[in-house]
Amino acid sequence: MSHLRGSIKKIDEALSLKWIKLNKITYIDCKGNERFWESASRTTKKGDTDGVDILATVKKDGRNYLIVVVQYRVPVDNLVIEFPAGLVDNDEDFINSAIRELKEETGYRATTDKVLLTSPILPLECGMSCANARMVVIDLEETICEEQELEGSENIDVFYLPMDNLFNELEELRKKLNCVVSIQLYTFALGLNFNKFLK
Amino acid sequence: MSHLRGSIKKIDEALSLKWIKLNKITYIDCKGNERFWESASRTTKKGDTDGVDILATVKKDGRNYLIVVVQYRVPVDNLVIEFPAGLVDNDEDFINSAIRELKEETGYRATTDKVLLTSPILPLECGMSCANARMVVIDLEETICEEQELEGSENIDVFYLPMDNLFNELEELRKKLNCVVSIQLYTFALGLNFNKFLK
Repeated sequence: MSHLRGSIKKIDEALSLKWIKLNKITYIDCKGNERFWESASRTTKKGDTDGVDILATVKKDGRNYLIVVVQYRVPVDNLVIEFPAGLVDNDEDFINSAIRELKEETGYRATTDKVLLTSPILPLECGMSCANARMVVIDLEETICEEQELEGSENIDVFYLPMDNLFNELEELRKKLNCVVSIQLYTFALGLNFNKFLK
Repeated sequence: MSHLRGSIKKIDEALSLKWIKLNKITYIDCKGNERFWESASRTTKKGDTDGVDILATVKKDGRNYLIVVVQYRVPVDNLVIEFPAGLVDNDEDFINSAIRELKEETGYRATTDKVLLTSPILPLECGMSCANARMVVIDLEETICEEQELEGSENIDVFYLPMDNLFNELEELRKKLNCVVSIQLYTFALGLNFNKFLK
């Protein structure tokens, strides 16, 4: 597959703010041509992973539920329904980030033995940014939920959506809140209930 | 749910390049406090939708396959496995964008009667950007594939992954190409085959 690979020749920082910077990139495409691209990236990245998305399920009365969060997101000026998520702190293992963020945002205290699956690095918007996340799948079973531990600027509500009808319930919640759904949560729900759409 | 909503007070453009701009946003959070956020956005947006992701399935010998594309993505300096996708052109209906991009990137000529589902606007990375996309689900059935119509800077390979084992086949392709998978494709595959993970 090396026939598709390009390579970066030079990165010029156009502007760096506190959290985000903008770069002009000079690269060589797979046919040897010099070309240009623009890219936004986070200034906070320390290791290879910007953030984690936590796919956490919990069983109540024999039915499986997905835990989702809703908060106001400034860049889109709207409420967004998302997986619980957050940035990886300095020197933090991303699984520990996931467990910490899940506790802070939802009140659920998970342990590493509840982690079913972790993903490789997944780009979030590779046409304009190098930002990425890893998915961490956690089966909480019937764990007890405690208080959220939100930071001062965070205001987050938690919802439980039944896995056996996730796509429809997510759509209903979106309409009820008159808001939007993150693309990774939407496509997960679409995949989970996809046999309803495919002939 | 109005108790979670904030509102934007002021947007200061910090820098605008050709494709991306960086904004400093002053907003009022849901508790009435004035706060600040930074955001990157595309300069190309005309309507409400930045781009489209096309979830296209095709049947071969009685088995359903998902069509995915692989290309070098400059911001992540790597090959990325993705849904076929592209930006919505000026005054273009997003369904027409999806049909056009599918033809350009994969050679498949779809028509609107093959569109099974279209999504609302889905933010791609709402912590740092207002960029969004819509999903367009297309069932090509056994349509004939023609030539790609790539632009000069595009070099894209097309792969067919069986839907009944999508998660594993995607992971195998990623390892074979030593590359990454977009988060929306990864979570779709995870949802499609999720009963393998959930107890």
